[in-house]
Amino acid sequence: MTTKSTEYDVIVVGAGPTGENVADRTSAAGLSTVLVESELVGGECSYWACMPSKALLRPPAALAAARAVAGSREAATGTLDAAAVLARRDSFVSHWKDDGQAAWVAGAGIELVRGEGRLDGPRRVLVRTPEGDERLLTARHAVALCTGSRAVLPADLPGLAEAKPWTSREATSAQRVPERLLVVGGGVVGVEMATAWQALGARVTLLVRGERLLPRLEPFAGELVAAGLRAAGVVVRTGVQTTAVRRDGAVVTVRLDDGSELAAEEVLFATGRAPRTERLGLAGVGLVDGSWLTVDDSCAVQGAAEAPGAKGPWLYAAGDLNHRALLTHQGKYQARIAGAAIAARALGRPLELGAWGAHAATADLAAVPQVVFTEPEVAAVGLSAEQAERAGHRARVVDYELGRVAGASLVADDYQGRARMVVDQEREVLLGVTFVGPGVGELLHAATIAVVGQVPIDRLWHAVPSYPTVSEIWLRLLETYRDAQQDDAHRDAE
Amino acid sequence: MTTKSTEYDVIVVGAGPTGENVADRTSAAGLSTVLVESELVGGECSYWACMPSKALLRPPAALAAARAVAGSREAATGTLDAAAVLARRDSFVSHWKDDGQAAWVAGAGIELVRGEGRLDGPRRVLVRTPEGDERLLTARHAVALCTGSRAVLPADLPGLAEAKPWTSREATSAQRVPERLLVVGGGVVGVEMATAWQALGARVTLLVRGERLLPRLEPFAGELVAAGLRAAGVVVRTGVQTTAVRRDGAVVTVRLDDGSELAAEEVLFATGRAPRTERLGLAGVGLVDGSWLTVDDSCAVQGAAEAPGAKGPWLYAAGDLNHRALLTHQGKYQARIAGAAIAARALGRPLELGAWGAHAATADLAAVPQVVFTEPEVAAVGLSAEQAERAGHRARVVDYELGRVAGASLVADDYQGRARMVVDQEREVLLGVTFVGPGVGELLHAATIAVVGQVPIDRLWHAVPSYPTVSEIWLRLLETYRDAQQDDAHRDAE
Repeated sequence: MTTKSTEYDVIVVGAGPTGENVADRTSAAGLSTVLVESELVGGECSYWACMPSKALLRPPAALAAARAVAGSREAATGTLDAAAVLARRDSFVSHWKDDGQAAWVAGAGIELVRGEGRLDGPRRVLVRTPEGDERLLTARHAVALCTGSRAVLPADLPGLAEAKPWTSREATSAQRVPERLLVVGGGVVGVEMATAWQALGARVTLLVRGERLLPRLEPFAGELVAAGLRAAGVVVRTGVQTTAVRRDGAVVTVRLDDGSELAAEEVLFATGRAPRTERLGLAGVGLVDGSWLTVDDSCAVQGAAEAPGAKGPWLYAAGDLNHRALLTHQGKYQARIAGAAIAARALGRPLELGAWGAHAATADLAAVPQVVFTEPEVAAVGLSAEQAERAGHRARVVDYELGRVAGASLVADDYQGRARMVVDQEREVLLGVTFVGPGVGELLHAATIAVVGQVPIDRLWHAVPSYPTVSEIWLRLLETYRDAQQDDAHRDAE
Repeated sequence: MTTKSTEYDVIVVGAGPTGENVADRTSAAGLSTVLVESELVGGECSYWACMPSKALLRPPAALAAARAVAGSREAATGTLDAAAVLARRDSFVSHWKDDGQAAWVAGAGIELVRGEGRLDGPRRVLVRTPEGDERLLTARHAVALCTGSRAVLPADLPGLAEAKPWTSREATSAQRVPERLLVVGGGVVGVEMATAWQALGARVTLLVRGERLLPRLEPFAGELVAAGLRAAGVVVRTGVQTTAVRRDGAVVTVRLDDGSELAAEEVLFATGRAPRTERLGLAGVGLVDGSWLTVDDSCAVQGAAEAPGAKGPWLYAAGDLNHRALLTHQGKYQARIAGAAIAARALGRPLELGAWGAHAATADLAAVPQVVFTEPEVAAVGLSAEQAERAGHRARVVDYELGRVAGASLVADDYQGRARMVVDQEREVLLGVTFVGPGVGELLHAATIAVVGQVPIDRLWHAVPSYPTVSEIWLRLLETYRDAQQDDAHRDAE
């Protein structure tokens, strides 16, 4: 065993999209930067999450869209080619090889060290390489932890480990379609994977502990997604809990709390995420191993031991492990901000730490967008009605059926969907927007810009949606809001 | 012949979407309102433009999208059912019956008078009814002209009238697919109808006088649309002029300026629009019959004779005939503003006539959105690079290939498209954005909100696009802008 030591300006642990973006920003600012990665460069998103899941979901969505319209329906009567979908998915994950991304890292002037990194005191990272060597890296300025999260299996479920359940990794990388699939969990992973594998030919049963699917989003999102799953043939059962699991060869059996049993070839547990922080050496710098990390808006970790002689923060955490928003795009956003903050502090440049400043991940608190690629799709940003109320806003909630918009009726016969806009009545700006319907994913960014830009309702009236697009929902929402406000004004005047 | 007279607060001539919206707004404000319509309530858009054209275009677009992806491609190998597409189109235009829209008018408390209306002096409209009666309507406050535009055929083309050419009306309402179709004109109508009828089975030749298709948009829009048309089998010929047309029974022959001839079953002339103002009685109120009408930002007509005893404007024009933006959605926008201005003036309420005020159609000048439903689609808002330069802005033009965005590569194998953002470098806000690519129509509203809201670039960085959607183009455009600005700064520093 040999130990080599090398000094850099910045050490980034974890080379998923978040780590790559932190490194990109610090490197672009002229700081020598090293990326430490124990698995594949590109991370969970590239190989076992966003990319493969969307690669599985897009072909059935495209086929459904063609079948939703008279004229093309008659031309799209064949069966989805599951083998072709899986092969396309394999290509989107580069067959689980990271040469392309490693080449990008090199091209960006960032050094890559393969191995598992852990803190060895402030600004020190010890890397155990695949060869069993140890390398000590030291950072002149900062260490950014970007190791993300992993799937969590229920802790006390008898027989679970022996049953070899799928997590999100196996569900996105499986090479064949199981005849039957049980999906436990009604969050994003659960509903997306139920959608994908049902479309690919499995008979899927979705088991949800609570009464709602997608419980963090507007209630109608989960309702419409449940209806879509059922229409596709998925058996959706809410209010059920798994009490035991066992595998007998090719068949896995799940026992429910009502005593009944369900058999399938595979079972996916999509039951939450935990931070990948157990082996990061957190305890050595005053933090707790295995915990989510608390960061300020510049992504500097709170409560870390001070580095000797350091003027400001030296430890950052961007992405899932800071628990602000477990989404790739939001991790990349944090990464850009953390990278810029690290560079500004290292180079003695002024920081913009106020709301919406260049070094404050303000959107994490006010405008996190999310698209769920189910049928129908769900796209949401900002606060739900419930969240707005809980936060004490005087909010008006405006709903509109998407199918009544001319553009939507053109897109699909019998288009089913709904939009909700949550308006802050004090400031007359949007707090949140949710769209549910086929293909609404690309409608979201308009809402994100409106929420982030705090564009007043009065000005939004001048943002004319093109006719006849689905985006005309914006006009309908504004009209509905106007009429409701006027009704109130009349009532007050009486 | 009998003459009846009736007095209203507001008379609206023309019951297309624009007229309907003016009437809706004045009626909602408590002003008695009458709508005068000589054809179908709902207007050009509902029966011979937006709705039927998009009904023709959607099924082939949906089919193309399914065929663009491995997995669904194999399930969508059939032939587009043209009869089903035409039947669906017929349903979208309510089989050219306006009962539904007339019922909406009645339900909104608006009176409907059928017949051809013309001004009979200030605030007087004489309607010749289908029965040959004349009805004199007088307006206490305002008359709004919303008669739109009609297709213009080349004035001096020998044989044209006898050749029974299609205009946009026939092209959107035809009941059978011609074997061969010649389309003259490379504007929006020309390229959309070439796309639709080629998909429906006609062999289409597109004849364009200039070198560019869609000449008012960014040059790459026309280039990518031309490539799309050619890939679909359309023969696209630029730089050609028609010199004569003749019809021999079922076959129409077009002579070109190089002396060659082309034969087809139908020929569509999509060669521009003229205001429907010839028979509006304009000359009697100091204006010019048949001319486009010039309006201020509240849509009040400039140069009209004053009404006796009137304090302010009495004549308004909203929609195509004011020539500000010949688009249904923009006409509806003007209609909302004109209706509000009429109501405010009639009721003695304060007007907000400044930029982006409630009574100023400011977006007409700064942010007109447009979607062209070709394959690929074109979606544009605000200024093109050329327009920004001509207007004297210090603008930076940022381009990005859409196919390089992960979300786009998921949507279609070998996705081809491009985005352009034109940034005002003085104020660091967007002047215009253009997207070209399959399905980009719904991306546009984000750009419209950004332009209209004048959301600064610094703030747009906090509007995170959801991964992996096509909307991530926003991040790529911002990055490209940032890098270009930094390159400039470095160059200046050297």
